[in-house]
Amino acid sequence: MQLSSTIAGIGPLDADAMAAARARQANLTKPPGSLGELEELGVRLAGLAGRCPPPVPTRPAVAVFAGDHGVYAQGVTPWPQEVTVQMVANFLAGGAVINVFARQAGAEVVVVDVGVAGDLDPHPALRSHKIRRGTRDLSVEAALTRDEALAAIEVGIATAVDLVDAGADCLLTGDMGIANTTAAAALVAAFTGSAPARVTGRGTGIDDDTLARKTAVVEAALGRLDRSADPVGVLAEVGGLEHAALAGFVLGGALRRVPVILDGVIADAGALVATALCADAAGALVAGHRSAEPGGRVALDHLGLVPLLDLGLRLGEGSGAVLAQPLVAAAARVLGEVATFDSAGVARK
Amino acid sequence: MQLSSTIAGIGPLDADAMAAARARQANLTKPPGSLGELEELGVRLAGLAGRCPPPVPTRPAVAVFAGDHGVYAQGVTPWPQEVTVQMVANFLAGGAVINVFARQAGAEVVVVDVGVAGDLDPHPALRSHKIRRGTRDLSVEAALTRDEALAAIEVGIATAVDLVDAGADCLLTGDMGIANTTAAAALVAAFTGSAPARVTGRGTGIDDDTLARKTAVVEAALGRLDRSADPVGVLAEVGGLEHAALAGFVLGGALRRVPVILDGVIADAGALVATALCADAAGALVAGHRSAEPGGRVALDHLGLVPLLDLGLRLGEGSGAVLAQPLVAAAARVLGEVATFDSAGVARK
Repeated sequence: MQLSSTIAGIGPLDADAMAAARARQANLTKPPGSLGELEELGVRLAGLAGRCPPPVPTRPAVAVFAGDHGVYAQGVTPWPQEVTVQMVANFLAGGAVINVFARQAGAEVVVVDVGVAGDLDPHPALRSHKIRRGTRDLSVEAALTRDEALAAIEVGIATAVDLVDAGADCLLTGDMGIANTTAAAALVAAFTGSAPARVTGRGTGIDDDTLARKTAVVEAALGRLDRSADPVGVLAEVGGLEHAALAGFVLGGALRRVPVILDGVIADAGALVATALCADAAGALVAGHRSAEPGGRVALDHLGLVPLLDLGLRLGEGSGAVLAQPLVAAAARVLGEVATFDSAGVARK
Repeated sequence: MQLSSTIAGIGPLDADAMAAARARQANLTKPPGSLGELEELGVRLAGLAGRCPPPVPTRPAVAVFAGDHGVYAQGVTPWPQEVTVQMVANFLAGGAVINVFARQAGAEVVVVDVGVAGDLDPHPALRSHKIRRGTRDLSVEAALTRDEALAAIEVGIATAVDLVDAGADCLLTGDMGIANTTAAAALVAAFTGSAPARVTGRGTGIDDDTLARKTAVVEAALGRLDRSADPVGVLAEVGGLEHAALAGFVLGGALRRVPVILDGVIADAGALVATALCADAAGALVAGHRSAEPGGRVALDHLGLVPLLDLGLRLGEGSGAVLAQPLVAAAARVLGEVATFDSAGVARK
């Protein structure tokens, strides 16, 4: 599905449905405001669905976008690059954390190869849309051509639309890619104007020397960036294929008006690209959790999103998004199922 | 079940099972530490169960302890006292927030009348153990006699033991009682040594004048307290019947070695009583969320518990505990179901 027509199809939240949700919250048998962040989330879900009460999401689907990174060559992580291929196999075999959490939540897991460097065996849950075998090294040249970035975005859009059209009512972002927090840090710095040192973190757990190298790499990429570049231009210069696909996934979810629960900093970076392309896409976003990675916090602040969980998670895969999904369902369920003061015969203050 | 024999039966966490859980975490296909707070929670669940992997809690039960408060007469809340009776009816009819959240989580809800001021119609989900029709006014006299406090504790113990023996594998605390955040503030101040103004909050949402009155009431109660009083003595002087029952509920869960997920400040106050009576009871505790009520934060700090959720909830009923339950299940599930590096053929860093 084309980026331009997708953007043209995304509209704002429905103000009438949001007003109806706010009015309904005030009549439910609970002190006003006592459900904290879940109340405003419920209002936003009503605005996204265009009706109150909003539908309760019961068929979540997580798409794990996998890709590799040329910047791996700069020594930004101690993990072997082949772990990307190996972890994709683990996802497909059902043994990774995301599979365990998804089973508990009743979520479907699909894996989308948008740029893994190695070869993957076919599997029913694997969607092969490899744009190229890893990005170029963003520390020395543009990671992607503009056409490659656009193609990855459009894989993400198509994945979202396809999952929703097959019955999913809530989309969860997932990612896998050794070295992908380096590209995420560069994207967060570029889209928020933050200094690289502020948004570059320890990813899977790197030492001080590696962190210094990683920060220098992000600085080099940012230094090369044309400040007049459009969002796709920035993404192509310093991003990654899974970040691009996640940007498209957000746009596809917003087009279909279902909530898109962001996992960690990789998805947060993708969401920055998506909302730079289309501000109304923000209406579909729910921050599943606050990543331990510093760029995650900066990105969520820029997006104006309050994370549902803050547990020091830094795994990726979609793990934090799946853990947050029941909270999103609960926020919707309140509006549809809780009794009102009148219906329950409860006095008001 | 007697308090003394319950305390005698509560043991420490199993160090061998905890060591086994830590060793297993290090072999699972994820970066070490990448699941943040959930990793240590999994270790504690193993220690509580005495085996690794720990059982995954799939049959949660929430007990909503309901009581009224003599201090209501001091104007500490704008809500009519009859709301306690009306909300109990709402719980039994399945229309309250706790029912909605419990349905989503597959949790059983039982309501325990330990001290509601009004009469309640019989219902299969209502357990009638009324100790008295509300407490005395803690601002001017002891809220309970020592025997009343002990009787309420023992109702809580029996409720926990009965639920577990009937199949529940995870206990969630719930509460209902107009004015019960006043007694909770007094208990938190007494057990943590904090100033009343620091732990007294707006409860269901009171104005500045009411907050000043509520704080003065807590100060009056604390000023009367005999600093040499034992935990039951403190509880009787300034507490409430549902706080006492929740203390017993914690002890009963610890005795049966199942996790007890604390809801908000009422349960946090009960947990302070329970751990003052038996330090090992802390091993069973999981902080479901950080209440918006300031005493909740102080109590959790004192208990050394990190809350799983921090969403600004201040409803009570057990709502925050039920929302947190899937996170507890996920923490246990990781240890039993995630593949190891060796089994999945994934390289280490």
